[in-house]
Amino acid sequence: MALLYTSVKPTPVLKDELDIVIPTIRNLDFLEMWRPFFEQYHLIIVQDGDPSKVINIPEGFDYELYNRNDINRILGPKASCISFKDSACRCFGYMVSKKKYIFTIDDDCFVAKDPSGKEINALEQHIKNLLSPSTPHFFNTLYDPFRDGADFVRGYPFSMREGAITAVSHGLWLNIPDYDAPTQLVKPLERNSRKFDLSPRYVDAVMTIPKGTLFPMCGMNLAFDRELIGPAMYFGLMGDGQPIGRYDDMWAGWCVKVICDHMGWGVKTGLPYLWHSKASNPFVNLKKEYKGIFWQEEAIPFFQSVTLPKECTSVQQCYLELAKLVREKLGKVDPYFIKLATGMVTWIEAWEELNSVEGTEAKAPTGKNE
Amino acid sequence: MALLYTSVKPTPVLKDELDIVIPTIRNLDFLEMWRPFFEQYHLIIVQDGDPSKVINIPEGFDYELYNRNDINRILGPKASCISFKDSACRCFGYMVSKKKYIFTIDDDCFVAKDPSGKEINALEQHIKNLLSPSTPHFFNTLYDPFRDGADFVRGYPFSMREGAITAVSHGLWLNIPDYDAPTQLVKPLERNSRKFDLSPRYVDAVMTIPKGTLFPMCGMNLAFDRELIGPAMYFGLMGDGQPIGRYDDMWAGWCVKVICDHMGWGVKTGLPYLWHSKASNPFVNLKKEYKGIFWQEEAIPFFQSVTLPKECTSVQQCYLELAKLVREKLGKVDPYFIKLATGMVTWIEAWEELNSVEGTEAKAPTGKNE
Repeated sequence: MALLYTSVKPTPVLKDELDIVIPTIRNLDFLEMWRPFFEQYHLIIVQDGDPSKVINIPEGFDYELYNRNDINRILGPKASCISFKDSACRCFGYMVSKKKYIFTIDDDCFVAKDPSGKEINALEQHIKNLLSPSTPHFFNTLYDPFRDGADFVRGYPFSMREGAITAVSHGLWLNIPDYDAPTQLVKPLERNSRKFDLSPRYVDAVMTIPKGTLFPMCGMNLAFDRELIGPAMYFGLMGDGQPIGRYDDMWAGWCVKVICDHMGWGVKTGLPYLWHSKASNPFVNLKKEYKGIFWQEEAIPFFQSVTLPKECTSVQQCYLELAKLVREKLGKVDPYFIKLATGMVTWIEAWEELNSVEGTEAKAPTGKNE
Repeated sequence: MALLYTSVKPTPVLKDELDIVIPTIRNLDFLEMWRPFFEQYHLIIVQDGDPSKVINIPEGFDYELYNRNDINRILGPKASCISFKDSACRCFGYMVSKKKYIFTIDDDCFVAKDPSGKEINALEQHIKNLLSPSTPHFFNTLYDPFRDGADFVRGYPFSMREGAITAVSHGLWLNIPDYDAPTQLVKPLERNSRKFDLSPRYVDAVMTIPKGTLFPMCGMNLAFDRELIGPAMYFGLMGDGQPIGRYDDMWAGWCVKVICDHMGWGVKTGLPYLWHSKASNPFVNLKKEYKGIFWQEEAIPFFQSVTLPKECTSVQQCYLELAKLVREKLGKVDPYFIKLATGMVTWIEAWEELNSVEGTEAKAPTGKNE
């Protein structure tokens, strides 16, 4: 009898309300390590690059897999807004999901351990972050006041203690930090050996990024409320045929933060950590990034100064307004931004098409294990 | 010979450029625990309450002590800006200091231990915070990029990596957190026993509070660059004869943050922790705080919306402008703010008087151990 009991696994939180989105070009052996944490959730795998390549997925996972042919078939001409040969294609997974929440993770990320040696259930922590309020309008010096054992400190206005709805939970990384190519290049110790431990500190905190403050959002370990902010989680035009890469998540982060600030929603960062296994090649990265490195000097002040009109009361409206401003203001920096603004509009059109009642029927993937 | 060598103590950082300011009403036995960290620094002790009471200070510390008679003698009619029977009187110590940096600490705060069990040199960490730049204009998800082993993450604009000058370092507390009276009252477990450990988490991070974001600044464990921001570190009118207490540091924090934002300087919070020994009486605190609790609902939106004119290029100018706005806007909330605005102006007059060349001669204290 005891055996029977132990074979029944407890249902994890939000099991039927969350999809895990994974962009990949290889076999998903990394899922083995995540099995205890992911196997009861549904996976959406977005296969990047050559669609004829077969991606092996370990037995026992519930998934659907989309390759480029699927994206083209489902979106038709609107498939132009989805990047190719770049992990930015992951945002297609956000669009075809039917769930309220998304967790997205890179396939070179493994389960990390906390300082006590315990394996971290990253997904569970993201869910905690998303289901508890944020504090974007005033800073709490003892970090997230909604965490167990924590509270608001003296001087925190009582009228603000209800907090704001949380739209995004941004997790961090142990082992290899998320550095740009120039920083990777000037830190050869980290690249060449593990003689010096340059892994980020484990910081036992979750915090809200204050209203009005932009942040570099990394897509490696990210969760969000798709129903709230999904239409703004567009990862832009990167990779094949584009002059830029490795700014997909940054672009999404700037747009998302500006819109969350406008809507009064919170963005959290901090826990959970996962274990990022290897740094990408800094020379390859430099080639992908170099235009981004100088464009961001114009793009960030642009996003810092954007004010969305009061009339924008939905994320879609906000996003289309932002696309208009990108075309007007950043279009002067480089014609790429005009193309990107068009991509932003196409993305919203595709989102609305797939997320209408009729649209949901068109979403069937090629690969599915059910 | 070995004995001779070991008796020579290494000179601590900023030994001759930093004063430790302690407001107190009792014997300073707590200094015994701080001896290894403080004994080479100069202390400024501001005795609160009855000036005829003798305060014992452990042997071997280099200090000057000011009581109310000293404050009245040195400031004359301008002494009206210094609170009586409230630890807000500590700001008198900032005014009479001749040093570039100030560290201020409460006399119920002891040396904390980090998770490895090592005693924390709080002052050394504050100095590290103050001597390294801040990042108020863009958020770094791996916290303070200037800490050993840390860096800026991918997507952090290169033009902002020089950082900003750090004006303030706000430290935290283990054991008893800094809660307001209502929070103390609703957490009786914490008040009545140590059965449940509600001590704040040790979070191994220092971070910059972004530009445009206010925070609740606690005066228990605080360091700042007096030459930069000193004239804005006024702890207001609290305690005896005033309708409010326990908002001295909050008031200073709101003013300081608005002025740092205007001047382009950074405010850090996080490490170091110290060990806060006992919670004050929540019933007494409620009496002191209750007006602050509803006034802050008006004062915080006021400070959030304040914009200082470009013409204000010194902290003194900013502070006088702020005093004018407090009188105009918050004066409508309660006549107390008109009195406070007058106190702010008097404070600046007194600061300028004492910190001019002639002024420094008038500052001699009554108690001094040299």
